[in-house]
Amino acid sequence: MLRKTDRMVNQIAALGRGDTTARHLAEAALSRAEAFHGLNAFVALDPEKVLAAAEASDGRRAARTTLGPLDGIPIAVKDNYLTADYPTTACSDALPLEPAGVDATLVARLRRGGAVIFGKTNMHEWAYGATNTTSSFGPTRNPHNPRHITGGSSGGSAAAVSAGIVTAALGSDTGGSIRIPASACGIYGFKPTYGRASRHGVLPLSWSLDAPGPLAASLDDLAVLLSCLLGEDAGDAATRGSRPFRPVAAHSRTVRLLHLTGPGLERSAEVDASVAAALQSARGCMVDTRELPGMRRFFGAWETILHCEATAYHQPLLAANAAGFSTVTRAHLEAGQYLSAQELLRAQQVRAEFCTLLASGLGDWDALVLPTLPVPAPAMDSDWQAFGGRRVTTQDSMTWFCWPGNLAGLPAVTLPCGLSSAGLPIGIMLMGRPGQDERLLQIAKRFDPAINLTE
Amino acid sequence: MLRKTDRMVNQIAALGRGDTTARHLAEAALSRAEAFHGLNAFVALDPEKVLAAAEASDGRRAARTTLGPLDGIPIAVKDNYLTADYPTTACSDALPLEPAGVDATLVARLRRGGAVIFGKTNMHEWAYGATNTTSSFGPTRNPHNPRHITGGSSGGSAAAVSAGIVTAALGSDTGGSIRIPASACGIYGFKPTYGRASRHGVLPLSWSLDAPGPLAASLDDLAVLLSCLLGEDAGDAATRGSRPFRPVAAHSRTVRLLHLTGPGLERSAEVDASVAAALQSARGCMVDTRELPGMRRFFGAWETILHCEATAYHQPLLAANAAGFSTVTRAHLEAGQYLSAQELLRAQQVRAEFCTLLASGLGDWDALVLPTLPVPAPAMDSDWQAFGGRRVTTQDSMTWFCWPGNLAGLPAVTLPCGLSSAGLPIGIMLMGRPGQDERLLQIAKRFDPAINLTE
Repeated sequence: MLRKTDRMVNQIAALGRGDTTARHLAEAALSRAEAFHGLNAFVALDPEKVLAAAEASDGRRAARTTLGPLDGIPIAVKDNYLTADYPTTACSDALPLEPAGVDATLVARLRRGGAVIFGKTNMHEWAYGATNTTSSFGPTRNPHNPRHITGGSSGGSAAAVSAGIVTAALGSDTGGSIRIPASACGIYGFKPTYGRASRHGVLPLSWSLDAPGPLAASLDDLAVLLSCLLGEDAGDAATRGSRPFRPVAAHSRTVRLLHLTGPGLERSAEVDASVAAALQSARGCMVDTRELPGMRRFFGAWETILHCEATAYHQPLLAANAAGFSTVTRAHLEAGQYLSAQELLRAQQVRAEFCTLLASGLGDWDALVLPTLPVPAPAMDSDWQAFGGRRVTTQDSMTWFCWPGNLAGLPAVTLPCGLSSAGLPIGIMLMGRPGQDERLLQIAKRFDPAINLTE
Repeated sequence: MLRKTDRMVNQIAALGRGDTTARHLAEAALSRAEAFHGLNAFVALDPEKVLAAAEASDGRRAARTTLGPLDGIPIAVKDNYLTADYPTTACSDALPLEPAGVDATLVARLRRGGAVIFGKTNMHEWAYGATNTTSSFGPTRNPHNPRHITGGSSGGSAAAVSAGIVTAALGSDTGGSIRIPASACGIYGFKPTYGRASRHGVLPLSWSLDAPGPLAASLDDLAVLLSCLLGEDAGDAATRGSRPFRPVAAHSRTVRLLHLTGPGLERSAEVDASVAAALQSARGCMVDTRELPGMRRFFGAWETILHCEATAYHQPLLAANAAGFSTVTRAHLEAGQYLSAQELLRAQQVRAEFCTLLASGLGDWDALVLPTLPVPAPAMDSDWQAFGGRRVTTQDSMTWFCWPGNLAGLPAVTLPCGLSSAGLPIGIMLMGRPGQDERLLQIAKRFDPAINLTE
């Protein structure tokens, strides 16, 4: 769906030249949101607030007091970020709907940069799932084919960018929730290194895995957003010592890519072919293929940590208002109560082992390469996926390649790399070493010109 | 018991001057070990091995190829350190008694420095207790009064130094196990910052709390030992990036001491008076007194983490040989199986809160001050201690002030600060900021000349 002209960097340039206004961008976005109402991407969107913010931006531009590159750009926000002027529900009936009165740190940073907060986007209830079919507002629909899911849990954010309503949106990622819908909807998504983006004011799912970050229409858009978002925040202890994002210049050194395969990393034939073609087209890359052993064990550790932490956070609300949770989310949260300390400790040890394996057990590498999803966006009503000799639930197929990035806290980016025979997007994922978010984005640029859908 | 002449630095000087030999030091230590056999400080000590190592040292000295300041110094090792040439039992019947064939990293560092490994010392079974009365070799006895306990779990190491058998010994500290017996026996003990001393080859009690370190006859002795022991070791991931210990020079800047009090930090009147007198005598110190709130909650977090991790480590051996554990240790380990993941996560969160409180919630401080123990060494047969309006088990009274240093990973040092009316030692404890072990030792020196027992 994306066209090159839909990029945020083009909007920034047009605003700078005076070829457009913030009000015009806001009106266009509002009218497009109206046109794509059937996608169910937004759960709250107030045209008056949007237009008021756009006019304030135009006023600053007239007075030559713009606040930065994002001034006047409409940006959508996932409904698990606290926002001063919109309710925050995590798309669950368990929460009250009143506006929080305060902004999450990342929302506040966007506003300080002049961005026009463009409503709240639909998500998988509490971010506790990767299909975006479980939501108190109903499922989101894929702009490439509305009978297919967006993936989740940041499905509304991905649909809004993919449909060209906005050029950027905020999401959050605990096991792929930024990358999954970005890939399924054919856009770009970036999960920063754990601890580089503040979670202050983002409703948690699993505090040792959660990473907020942007979805956008190009790698250059991601760079502008990350420059505004990343860095230390007193509200989130995990960000202590975290550096702001400073884009690095391109260089010609050969980068070493490790394409991961093996049991637990199966993918469908057409996804595999797309990733292989992308790897062949990338310039200045040396590609090794390598099996990653013990995936089921590492996956078990991720799942145990996720369930234990999610239950710990939700326990009080679950006790007060169990009926407010969907049946499936409640079942997850209740199961988390019966895991033992011994099981959690074991998972934490296996996690440490996994980090060591990636840090030093795989030799030298600059980026790990995987498809983002083993299959294109599944149909709304399909509960199972079959690929590469595996048959797994649609839910598990969505996190299939993504959870390792959360378990090890790595930065990860997904970019579109073609369409399936059914015309659904396929994505390629690159993961970098912890803290090397800038370098990862630079490596992604070696792929993008040859494969992306936006030209 | 200690006299100034018993210090290791004096032994080093005498060896350097040629006034004594390693063989002479070893013989004197062996004969003193024989004389103090009734203390039950040693569980393995082989005169032949000791004399052979001493003669090798004398040979190096004659050839002018000594290995460092420790060359020729007899040093005892707690029985939870693996040693190539002695069995390692953790003073439990659950373990086989064969020599390990390999040295723990810290033992290897002592040997590489020329030290004469002087047998293995008695300890509380598996280090899972602080009285040293539970041991497959029977209780250790306090050199100041053999009807009183040494405290533990490094009780044999403390007794050996206190009785002047050796001037230094290795211990390990999970909730005070170096500091408790050092204080109860009137000597010096140092728990390094978590992760500055390698645990490789030290049988674990609780891997996120355990810190190995030295017991000695003076602060200068500790400095020599720490310089040999601390620093990175590939065998212990927690030491990654850990610096070697480099003693810092004295300076005249006023140091800010925070004397902690309040509920949960009660102490007997005579202990309180000794610490108050020590604080008054210290030069160049500004002392604030401050309550530390929420101690019961923080203690609960320490205990939960301890039990969960200890059970995780011992589970296989417990399953294979439950009868090998003492009743009380087995009860602890079995209880650890029934703690839930939710309880452990809560404890880990409270722990993070405690670290934040100490790091930034108490304002500026250079060292935290507490008595090391709330009472002098209890009598062998007393199961309860009463002090400052509290009545607690002898076990709990031993860890009363020490566990916070482990929960927050702080460096901590105990030094003698007088005798009780019954002639039993009283100790004062200083805790520094994480990583500032050198600075902590320097601060301790401001107290030592005025109060120590060794002049």
